[in-house]
Amino acid sequence: MCQLLAMSCKQPATINFSFEGFATRGGRTDEHQDGWGIAFFEDEGCRMFLDAQPACSSPVAELIRQYPIKSRNVIAHIRKATEGSGGVALQNCHPFSRELWGRPWIFAHNGNVNPFVPPADAPAVHVPIGQTDSERAFCYILNRLRAKFAVQPPLDALQAELADMAAQIAQHGTFNFVLSNGPLMFAYFTTNLHVVTRRHPFTTAKLADCDMQMDFSKHNQIDDVISVIATKPLTADEVWHAFSPHELRVFHEGECIAVGPCAAQPPAVAPS
Amino acid sequence: MCQLLAMSCKQPATINFSFEGFATRGGRTDEHQDGWGIAFFEDEGCRMFLDAQPACSSPVAELIRQYPIKSRNVIAHIRKATEGSGGVALQNCHPFSRELWGRPWIFAHNGNVNPFVPPADAPAVHVPIGQTDSERAFCYILNRLRAKFAVQPPLDALQAELADMAAQIAQHGTFNFVLSNGPLMFAYFTTNLHVVTRRHPFTTAKLADCDMQMDFSKHNQIDDVISVIATKPLTADEVWHAFSPHELRVFHEGECIAVGPCAAQPPAVAPS
Repeated sequence: MCQLLAMSCKQPATINFSFEGFATRGGRTDEHQDGWGIAFFEDEGCRMFLDAQPACSSPVAELIRQYPIKSRNVIAHIRKATEGSGGVALQNCHPFSRELWGRPWIFAHNGNVNPFVPPADAPAVHVPIGQTDSERAFCYILNRLRAKFAVQPPLDALQAELADMAAQIAQHGTFNFVLSNGPLMFAYFTTNLHVVTRRHPFTTAKLADCDMQMDFSKHNQIDDVISVIATKPLTADEVWHAFSPHELRVFHEGECIAVGPCAAQPPAVAPS
Repeated sequence: MCQLLAMSCKQPATINFSFEGFATRGGRTDEHQDGWGIAFFEDEGCRMFLDAQPACSSPVAELIRQYPIKSRNVIAHIRKATEGSGGVALQNCHPFSRELWGRPWIFAHNGNVNPFVPPADAPAVHVPIGQTDSERAFCYILNRLRAKFAVQPPLDALQAELADMAAQIAQHGTFNFVLSNGPLMFAYFTTNLHVVTRRHPFTTAKLADCDMQMDFSKHNQIDDVISVIATKPLTADEVWHAFSPHELRVFHEGECIAVGPCAAQPPAVAPS
């Protein structure tokens, strides 16, 4: 299993405080030592930092700690390689990236959907580079979106198609994921995903994994809104809300602007 | 205009020595201060570091200097934004990346082919994210390859198709580029591209742009082969060979394994 971290903000912000606690779980306070990655959307582009080394000791993670990159949308992942999910290698580190409709799309997954295989007649424009079930699912999602929509459709149509695919793939296991094209961030829950939304009046918070505290009132403007999504709550003194099972939430500029599914409900069979 | 740096090696090697001189040109000894990027192929994956800041002062470039990443294939680029080539922004930094046939393909360009527009009936699976003529040309190349070949074809067919497209695009301006999928590196010349191949007996070399010398015999094994490709020679005391006009060279594990074009010659009209 792995852990996810994502952030959606109204104004570009740094993720350093959350990343500090999160990266600690990458081999120090937790077992997720088989690589990590982080993607920052900036302007219309996106840059990713990946490393097959544990996040707690990676020189690239140290750069992220030292270099405050401001972004409205960030997705990070620390990896624990499991059977069938690919070995420890750069090509198996999340997040994964592909271009669709002239935008970078970024995806990271927590769980295991190894039994999932795209239908034989599914389009196959995007092909996995690595060996993970996660990248296979991501390619399937983008291939189906590409086949159905020539350009990016309205949000309700996009959300419905994503919810439908998420429910389909989640039949094969645990499928918590975050997916973003920059302006929009989608988060889907089967077993483990939490969110906290910080807004005025900002308070202080203390990391759960290391001795660090942050006074958000000193770093944010009155109209800032920041949602942080994580597998497990990162702070010890804030209220994190668990998603509901098979819920697909859409975030834009820090706000949750839609809660699904608005497509077919998944079957009653519990994920294995 | 911009500058290119690429390396193809038999054994994974660091590019730190070459990058040191190259990054200096990114705003210190030369004018290429509008962003930079570097891509390292590792295992079956690839990781890129991009920054819209000048390479000479970028914190990410400092990481590359401090963190010796070993790779058989590296492509780097420093950017001078020119009219029509897109503003200073992350999405306009080279190298560009797309997945094709289950592999990452990486592309960087020196020159200006702004008048080039893909034919209206050209396939458009890949769409530029940024505003550069370079990414537009790269997307066209991958779209045509994808449309013609369902899987990666034999080298001679791939080289012929690339040479044909390179000549077509080069009719619209200056089109020096490097393109790699990991195992293979293609380098195309219209005006400015040089190569040095280092092999046993290894000697010393001194950077042209800063006071640094390297004794390659201390860092390489007897059977190592390393080709470094650059817009302008990076060392002052080695013989760098200029490519011939409209030549497409293919490198594999440090050796130049094919020299083209093996497709239609470009027209006699000199690039503007």
